[in-house]
Amino acid sequence: MSLIKKIKDKKVNFEFNKEYIKVVTSKIANNDAQFITNSFNEMHPADAADIIEHLGQNDRESLIKLNNFNIDPEVFIELNESVQSEIIAYLSPDTIVRLLKNLESDDAITILENVDEKDKNTILSSLPPKDRFALLESLSYPEDTAARIMQREFTAVPSNWSVGQTIDYLRENKDLPEEFLEIFIIDEDFKPIGTVPSSKVLTTSRETKMLSIMSESQLLIPVDMDKEEVGNVFENYSLNSAAVVDKSNKLVGMIMYDDVLTVLKEEAEEDALRLAGVGDEEITDGVFKKTRRRFNWLLLNLFTAFLATWVISLFGATIEQMVVLAFLMPIVASMGGNAGMQTLAVTVRTLATNDLTKNNFTQNILKEFNIGILNGIIFAIISALVVQVWFQDSLLSLIISMSMIVTMIVAGLFGILVPITLKKMDIDPAIASSVFVTTITDVIGFVSFLGVSAYFL
Amino acid sequence: MSLIKKIKDKKVNFEFNKEYIKVVTSKIANNDAQFITNSFNEMHPADAADIIEHLGQNDRESLIKLNNFNIDPEVFIELNESVQSEIIAYLSPDTIVRLLKNLESDDAITILENVDEKDKNTILSSLPPKDRFALLESLSYPEDTAARIMQREFTAVPSNWSVGQTIDYLRENKDLPEEFLEIFIIDEDFKPIGTVPSSKVLTTSRETKMLSIMSESQLLIPVDMDKEEVGNVFENYSLNSAAVVDKSNKLVGMIMYDDVLTVLKEEAEEDALRLAGVGDEEITDGVFKKTRRRFNWLLLNLFTAFLATWVISLFGATIEQMVVLAFLMPIVASMGGNAGMQTLAVTVRTLATNDLTKNNFTQNILKEFNIGILNGIIFAIISALVVQVWFQDSLLSLIISMSMIVTMIVAGLFGILVPITLKKMDIDPAIASSVFVTTITDVIGFVSFLGVSAYFL
Repeated sequence: MSLIKKIKDKKVNFEFNKEYIKVVTSKIANNDAQFITNSFNEMHPADAADIIEHLGQNDRESLIKLNNFNIDPEVFIELNESVQSEIIAYLSPDTIVRLLKNLESDDAITILENVDEKDKNTILSSLPPKDRFALLESLSYPEDTAARIMQREFTAVPSNWSVGQTIDYLRENKDLPEEFLEIFIIDEDFKPIGTVPSSKVLTTSRETKMLSIMSESQLLIPVDMDKEEVGNVFENYSLNSAAVVDKSNKLVGMIMYDDVLTVLKEEAEEDALRLAGVGDEEITDGVFKKTRRRFNWLLLNLFTAFLATWVISLFGATIEQMVVLAFLMPIVASMGGNAGMQTLAVTVRTLATNDLTKNNFTQNILKEFNIGILNGIIFAIISALVVQVWFQDSLLSLIISMSMIVTMIVAGLFGILVPITLKKMDIDPAIASSVFVTTITDVIGFVSFLGVSAYFL
Repeated sequence: MSLIKKIKDKKVNFEFNKEYIKVVTSKIANNDAQFITNSFNEMHPADAADIIEHLGQNDRESLIKLNNFNIDPEVFIELNESVQSEIIAYLSPDTIVRLLKNLESDDAITILENVDEKDKNTILSSLPPKDRFALLESLSYPEDTAARIMQREFTAVPSNWSVGQTIDYLRENKDLPEEFLEIFIIDEDFKPIGTVPSSKVLTTSRETKMLSIMSESQLLIPVDMDKEEVGNVFENYSLNSAAVVDKSNKLVGMIMYDDVLTVLKEEAEEDALRLAGVGDEEITDGVFKKTRRRFNWLLLNLFTAFLATWVISLFGATIEQMVVLAFLMPIVASMGGNAGMQTLAVTVRTLATNDLTKNNFTQNILKEFNIGILNGIIFAIISALVVQVWFQDSLLSLIISMSMIVTMIVAGLFGILVPITLKKMDIDPAIASSVFVTTITDVIGFVSFLGVSAYFL
């Protein structure tokens, strides 16, 4: 956060400059570290980071290893995590120490999380004791907690101060965060009892007591709260910053909206990717990394596909009797799969935002059941009509419409029940649900279609 | 935004209170508007909105129509859009006018967007001329532009003022937004030339000129910029607020991080839902609304499934010759579909964040081609082994492995090319891509598997 003010003076390109990549690439080839350092200094760090991200992996390695090129901490922190960990592997512990010293604690933690275990100790021991202690303290909390996204730099004043005293203190104290949206009011035990927005201090007369303009904030974030939960709290209550407290309710840090923005956006994005069977893939990942990340999902899918094959093989005699069943059997399974995925995608988002409660649970399952019946009837009629016109066989039309209704109801029910069950078992519903749902709909689709056929033929 | 300070004094429930719904429901049945008004007043508006959202639709209607119950503007704005438009239908134009008068312009616009065309004019004519003009002006811009999410209330001072003059002005002026994170510095033509964070004014001595502590912000948002683009700019440059300018570069409004948070999160969520073939579905939508929203997708899918049927029917003679082909044919198509969806999900996210550029375009397509070959070979070997063990037929193993390689390559290529092509044609790749990709992988899967079989048999 402290970077925000400083970087605002830099020039900004809304449109990413594609030509400039070529210039940088040729300067890397010529070992012209001076040119690159100078031009990055003129740029907004986010734009410089964009350029580094868009370099080829070899060029990126050459750039970092160039003599006299030192990557700016402000640029580094703007890189995506995949490129950050790639670059960290090329950096000496000394350079990492320099980066860490220039960053606030939340950004420093992000870097330290990506450093090798053995380098981590070398680096930590080279830091000033105060910084080292703060980082070790943050690292002692699990990776997904508020402790990892909070900064330990904040502004707090005692409750008996006046606005004038506060302003005088802020003008004299040089050890404040570069920017703070709110001032925390604390009692003698360092417990936060309220907040005053910076702008409120500006609009109030000097003699007014801080206590009288303070909001009695109840929104204290426990240091071990899950960071997705922090995101939901920020979003639900439209916060721009919040105080973080330890077990004894003492103020230990502050979380800003921009750290939360990243968490919330990443969470929604991850769900989209996980539903499609991809992990935290970055565009900058290489072919092997990407293949490895997608492998498990495809392997799992292969075995569920063989399960479907086995189900179909049970009805081999029926298919031999009437080969047109083989033409039509993918239809019911495919419709069930799609209907199930629709319900699933909605349920996963609803679970992520805590909108599905015990209170509306039965109501929503009933809804999906009714949608299943409705969709089942609608698509039973449409597909029966198409089959009738195409194959002129009313038994076949009856078979497809019956199995369509069954499959659509099952698809809707499992689309909501599977993610709820997984969530109850503490498994991320986004990552595991869709393979269950599509397997179930495939099996039910084939069994109902071929089973009804076997019964009638 | 002006609501933030006020609502912070209210009590907050991190855990949604499920029992309380029952209390509210019984009070609605007893027409006890007084009780509900009182308890909503004690609650955080976000919590009161949560309760209203979780009521049954009939109870919600009864609540709004209760005598003497007036929904609080702060509560209303916290409701999700689906419930907002449901409630607006029950409200008299007078009540809507009261709501609008109490909200800042960005929130007022959100409400007005949901009002019937004929009521809109009645409502607008009941508003004070200044508010009416501002709203009409905002409505004159397309729905997805910066104009619709900006607020017209902001804080701006001339460039020659000192910090002391600024603080005196802020203390005296009662017409400021409730909270402002930054003060805009404007020239004599009302053009923004820089910004000063509120906290910077607090930490600087009175005699300092605003000009000397100002950041020369280049980040001016054009009033007609697409709001998703605004979201990307905020995220990329870690902004907390930004000035909005009209065509002649005059300052006309300000956008705050919380409006952008909603845009960014909704965008990522929408992509997840659209890839699964669901529109902007809310958990509170009824059965018919949900069925209607999912219908088009399922209908489209039904016709692509019949296309696959037609493709299979071309190989009827081959299947009759060897019915085991019917058992195995869904495997290749299913693997292709999954591999294609993986590439697609990654590409859609990459396009949304503008990370796919002309510069890395060819490189990424080549990557997907290579991943396709790698995955094709890996899964060709695995499935050939399974088929060999199961059916003891080496020709069948050869057939499935050949068609697997072809299909996986095609899946990867179309998973990246389809969304890029749609984006170039200005069609949302999230909403339209997956049906194209799965149709292509289905057809290629069946044609390659049955085609190779027909050739060898």
